[in-house]
Amino acid sequence: MHGRTSGETVHLDGNARERFYDSRGYGVPDGDELDLAPVEAAHLLWREDIESVDGQDLQAYLASQPGLAVRFLVYKDLRDRGFYLAPAERWFDGETDVDFAVFPRGEGPWGDAVEYRVRVVGERDDVPVSALGDATLAVVDEESEITYLGTDHEDVTGSSTTDLPSGVPATLLGDRVAVPDAPDGLYERAFYGQPLDRNDGGDLQLSLLEAAHLAGDVLALDREAVLEKGHEVEGERFDRRLCVYTTLRERGVVPKTGFKFGADFRTYADVESVDDLGHSELLVRVLPGDHVFAPRDLALDVRLAHGVRKTMVYAVVGGGEVEWVAVSRLTP
Amino acid sequence: MHGRTSGETVHLDGNARERFYDSRGYGVPDGDELDLAPVEAAHLLWREDIESVDGQDLQAYLASQPGLAVRFLVYKDLRDRGFYLAPAERWFDGETDVDFAVFPRGEGPWGDAVEYRVRVVGERDDVPVSALGDATLAVVDEESEITYLGTDHEDVTGSSTTDLPSGVPATLLGDRVAVPDAPDGLYERAFYGQPLDRNDGGDLQLSLLEAAHLAGDVLALDREAVLEKGHEVEGERFDRRLCVYTTLRERGVVPKTGFKFGADFRTYADVESVDDLGHSELLVRVLPGDHVFAPRDLALDVRLAHGVRKTMVYAVVGGGEVEWVAVSRLTP
Repeated sequence: MHGRTSGETVHLDGNARERFYDSRGYGVPDGDELDLAPVEAAHLLWREDIESVDGQDLQAYLASQPGLAVRFLVYKDLRDRGFYLAPAERWFDGETDVDFAVFPRGEGPWGDAVEYRVRVVGERDDVPVSALGDATLAVVDEESEITYLGTDHEDVTGSSTTDLPSGVPATLLGDRVAVPDAPDGLYERAFYGQPLDRNDGGDLQLSLLEAAHLAGDVLALDREAVLEKGHEVEGERFDRRLCVYTTLRERGVVPKTGFKFGADFRTYADVESVDDLGHSELLVRVLPGDHVFAPRDLALDVRLAHGVRKTMVYAVVGGGEVEWVAVSRLTP
Repeated sequence: MHGRTSGETVHLDGNARERFYDSRGYGVPDGDELDLAPVEAAHLLWREDIESVDGQDLQAYLASQPGLAVRFLVYKDLRDRGFYLAPAERWFDGETDVDFAVFPRGEGPWGDAVEYRVRVVGERDDVPVSALGDATLAVVDEESEITYLGTDHEDVTGSSTTDLPSGVPATLLGDRVAVPDAPDGLYERAFYGQPLDRNDGGDLQLSLLEAAHLAGDVLALDREAVLEKGHEVEGERFDRRLCVYTTLRERGVVPKTGFKFGADFRTYADVESVDDLGHSELLVRVLPGDHVFAPRDLALDVRLAHGVRKTMVYAVVGGGEVEWVAVSRLTP
């Protein structure tokens, strides 16, 4: 059987509907005949179920359309994993940011359930942060291996609260703040700062974020001076990070530096005492709303978070609001 | 006892030499008296061994000099770990890129052995890649925790060699290359490419780097067309990566994509057969000679590599030569 291109689809004559749609979920029936998307036609070429498309073999057909080779690799991989899938434009009205609707195992285009909304991404493509949250990314690396990344909107909440004293003396020391003879609760219960000496919790060092959050109330420290120093050393990034820091604290989640993990924060949802600290659950990276990822940086973050048994969460800041998006590796 | 600033040093009168130099390694003797660097004076203030410097207490003195608070944190931490150390300018002639000479445990400024050459880096400072190789970085994060990163020049070699056929047909497919019905040795022994189907090693997908390395000899493929596509999708970065790829292959090391680890390559030093592949030893990131790190990105790379039991190596490309620098976490 031979396919021929008609508009944006590949048409198959004869009993193509019976052979390829009814039991195997390819294409859109046209009477007994069938209209295929290019990836579906490529897959049937690969399986040697059809012999050519417009006289071309698989390699020539793949080379004939930009991006088709990469979409074909993902389509084939998902088929190999036992899924039926359809091109997104056939399935979702007006949808443009994903490529495939993947049906639950054992189901197909006859039903109406969708398991994954898959966006195909080449290793060298840009991924705007706004594309994360509803889609599963299928990243095809330069050696044609595929990494699936699940993305979800995350609800970040915790139960950490504490009463704090007020008017504690503090000094701005360059890009950090010293609190000599800090009251016990500040570090021990609320987990602000870091003791200058492990054996003597009296003198604390606070980050500029911690200090900005506490200045003018808990700390007897000029908040404007802290904000000014923050802007001096980090620019607008400081505002975004402070917005996320404050939002986390308001939600009962304790953020501490994620530096050792290359992130902005690691977070603890339920802190009662530093002596009885659990495992931190999230790694948080703060991003502006117009951030664009290189897929490799996503892979790096997700792999690291997995290795330290934490969830990677992007805190996307726009208009003073924070949107939380979790990204993790996924095996379909 | 009170210190007073004289030029760039802090002078202590009385029997300061006996008290602080002879048994504890602070400062430079001046008869019975002593000249201290600012970090040394700050440390004696912290220990309450002296009462003031120019009438200032510890916090006021730390705030009086830019960067002194951060250098003090590292100086104190190394002292706490049982080391004696001296300011670099006192120890190394004309040395400017490190801050401290740290002596082996049990030794001090009386001997001449140096254990670590420590460069103090704030989390927000830039670290040029040229600063790596001889120094130990002491990175002070925003919460004043210190991460030590050892950096070394690395000798990257392996024993992977193989005879390859020539004139194998191949097709450029967008930003990758297809090799239909590839000869056995190409993947199975030399570990080029990736089978399109796991159950059928016949059709290989090669990366542009692999194809550029093999084109015109092993592959019947126009090398110029591959290079042109490489430049189109990666610009100068492609030249750097190809330089490193080629150098690794010439040294008997097999590079494969490091995408899942967020790196350019993972490498295998001794490949005889893909069926009997060992653990990949290195993660390689390719960088131009003028690259400047944010310390957080260094921390991310090093933490990830440690978690997957590999060594993080930066391949720094300049003038067609590659310099290899390994970076790893270190506990002094």
